Amino acid sequence: MPSPVPAHPSLRVAVLGCGVVGTEVVRLLTTQAADLASRVGAPLELVGVAVRDVETERDAVVDRALLTADAEALVERADVVVEVMGGIEPARSLLLRAIAGGASVVTANKALLAQDGPTLYAAADEAGVDVYFEAAVAGAIPIVRPVRESLAGDRVTRVLGIVNGTTNYVLDKMASEGLDLDQAVKEAQALGYAEADPTADVEGYDAAAKAAILASLAFHTRVSIEDVSREGITSLTADDVLWAQRTGYVLKLLAIAERGTADGVEGVQVRVHPALVPVSHPLANVRGAYNAVFVEAEAAGELMFYGRGAGGEPTASAVLGDVVSVARHRVLGGKGPIESRYAELPVLPAAAARTRYQVRLEVADRPGVLAQVSTVLASHDVSIEAVRQTPVTETPDADYARLVITTHAAPEHALRSTVEAITGLDVVRRVVSVLRVEGA
Amino acid sequence: MPSPVPAHPSLRVAVLGCGVVGTEVVRLLTTQAADLASRVGAPLELVGVAVRDVETERDAVVDRALLTADAEALVERADVVVEVMGGIEPARSLLLRAIAGGASVVTANKALLAQDGPTLYAAADEAGVDVYFEAAVAGAIPIVRPVRESLAGDRVTRVLGIVNGTTNYVLDKMASEGLDLDQAVKEAQALGYAEADPTADVEGYDAAAKAAILASLAFHTRVSIEDVSREGITSLTADDVLWAQRTGYVLKLLAIAERGTADGVEGVQVRVHPALVPVSHPLANVRGAYNAVFVEAEAAGELMFYGRGAGGEPTASAVLGDVVSVARHRVLGGKGPIESRYAELPVLPAAAARTRYQVRLEVADRPGVLAQVSTVLASHDVSIEAVRQTPVTETPDADYARLVITTHAAPEHALRSTVEAITGLDVVRRVVSVLRVEGA
Repeated sequence: MPSPVPAHPSLRVAVLGCGVVGTEVVRLLTTQAADLASRVGAPLELVGVAVRDVETERDAVVDRALLTADAEALVERADVVVEVMGGIEPARSLLLRAIAGGASVVTANKALLAQDGPTLYAAADEAGVDVYFEAAVAGAIPIVRPVRESLAGDRVTRVLGIVNGTTNYVLDKMASEGLDLDQAVKEAQALGYAEADPTADVEGYDAAAKAAILASLAFHTRVSIEDVSREGITSLTADDVLWAQRTGYVLKLLAIAERGTADGVEGVQVRVHPALVPVSHPLANVRGAYNAVFVEAEAAGELMFYGRGAGGEPTASAVLGDVVSVARHRVLGGKGPIESRYAELPVLPAAAARTRYQVRLEVADRPGVLAQVSTVLASHDVSIEAVRQTPVTETPDADYARLVITTHAAPEHALRSTVEAITGLDVVRRVVSVLRVEGA
Repeated sequence: MPSPVPAHPSLRVAVLGCGVVGTEVVRLLTTQAADLASRVGAPLELVGVAVRDVETERDAVVDRALLTADAEALVERADVVVEVMGGIEPARSLLLRAIAGGASVVTANKALLAQDGPTLYAAADEAGVDVYFEAAVAGAIPIVRPVRESLAGDRVTRVLGIVNGTTNYVLDKMASEGLDLDQAVKEAQALGYAEADPTADVEGYDAAAKAAILASLAFHTRVSIEDVSREGITSLTADDVLWAQRTGYVLKLLAIAERGTADGVEGVQVRVHPALVPVSHPLANVRGAYNAVFVEAEAAGELMFYGRGAGGEPTASAVLGDVVSVARHRVLGGKGPIESRYAELPVLPAAAARTRYQVRLEVADRPGVLAQVSTVLASHDVSIEAVRQTPVTETPDADYARLVITTHAAPEHALRSTVEAITGLDVVRRVVSVLRVEGA
């Protein structure tokens, strides 16, 4: 494979962080050096890898002579800075220092971008350098570039994403093996899919950061993680998962960003919560630790992007794609897209979201119950799409039945007051669960 | 929605062609003008639409004052030329004239790119302008940009695509309603999914052009449509589709580009043919007129891109995304990626492809037949993965049985000689079909 020696001098690349992703970034920079040079038009020279402790044992691909604990000095002598250390500080200060020094930056840091991205974007715009972050959302899946570039001539109306592999693995295990949440989380931990403290994943914080980034791009509006209404998977039971299957759905943790209106004001609504997805929907088949993002746009229609959402190699692939892009700008001139926030849409409260719901009840096993419950829904303007009533057979002499109601789209406040009223009915033994239905 | 007036002067956009796609491009340029101006940083001014006959009745969105039959004069006064007329000439000459005059071009013309793309790329490189063509492959699905930019830091090993919506619709109808090919094509024609002359679709020419474009991008190597081995769907029967389902597969027309070796030489192999895809594979669920492209890369792993592959609005969405990209380069400076062909991999002959096969036979209904057939396969070094033997029940007194053999991966020439030898066996009544198995 002939690779003509490029005429442009080497570009100096610094890597901040040498965990699972950093190691794979170093590996690709090393093993693919000839290909990368041909694609960029200049060799990429790895000038250093910043780590907390240079003495820690590391993969043999990482040349120990390149390790440094002085990240601040390292970013000063780089053309491209790759940040894969995570966390807010010192990542934020280091990237701002890199930008101020004229380096372009590539980061996989979703927490930083969802909290303080605009500070980085503004600094980069002023310095005339790039901030690229494909790896921050859904790992190897190209989603940032398609949303901010390919769909730049269209109007996105909705983004529905399975953007957290850990929770998708957990829900998948619950569905396929009937495990309860704790068992499934333990299995995910044993396989390295979940951290020892799984809070960021199971409580939806990780998905919320990605939802904020996607919403910002899709709607040309600043959305931070504080704007995202968030509910994790911790309240879901094996029974919820089982009933989802029985009624033709799959339970998924979704990150959702959509256009909507509240009190006549057009805006965007961004939320993360578990939802029932019809088995026929493309997102329903996204299994295990895979991620997928489903995008609806006015002209393009429905699009889906699917792939590995985490892990060292897939994340490194996304990082290197960005490194090639920003490095090409160094060689050929020009610059990637800047922050697009001209639309300045207001972020609407979670209560403004209109969704379908599935409500599961235990009710008295006698005639007339459905009529009473239906009357309550009607009086709150919540209309019923489907009802399923089944006697309880597994408990002998059970004197109650199960009622599963699927509603048409209704505002959250209407649903809440409806459920409250239903709970107060004599014939209702218990409201077992209330789950949103999406993607129908 | 505040849209600050951009300081940059208007960019002049010319559209060549005003069919289904051209009309939707004009509609988006008109109805989304404010959004597009904010995203580009300058207003996009539609300066003309070139058509063959200015008198033809058209959609009201197309201002008749903008119509012109003089495409050559039109391209001279544009900053961005959008070509959605199709065909080789005059599209090719007009684009070269536009490029020579300093305009960037956006084209949806797969046939032109697959036949003579390098001429356009070289001219654009020399003139310092962009050639963008997201809409040329798989309509609205962002696939060109992800492959040539997002995966630029990775090594793609294989691309498997359902890139022709017409044939996917036809095969889907055959599977879901038991139609034969002619009936399904007629239905596709009635719905506007297939042309009056469906040759380009059903014989695989359209898919082959897209395969050439994808292969060029994925492997950094020039691949033209003449390099693509091509087989359409015209020989497929309702029986083939039925047996695919019975054995756990779905029949799809696939465009395949993959790395491989022949006689020790590393190269790429590009082909279009019908293939059995396991029902569990993500491509198996791509229904109707949808398209999807499945990409395997060393670091990223498996990715899939899914959406509408044709139609006016989806194609216009892809065109406008490109228009925004090239227009941004006009405003901010810089330039998109140029043709990457440094790898210069040889294109390997179709016979070099190693795939799995499913061979269906009618054989004598007596003991020992399987042993004889197996011996023939073994003697040609073709190893068997699965065998299924079933008596014929629908014909009374039938004296033969059906034998379905699925092989492990084998080179095409070995399979050909195997089938020839099997055909010559006394116990074999007929070789009913030989189909490739992909995606397993």
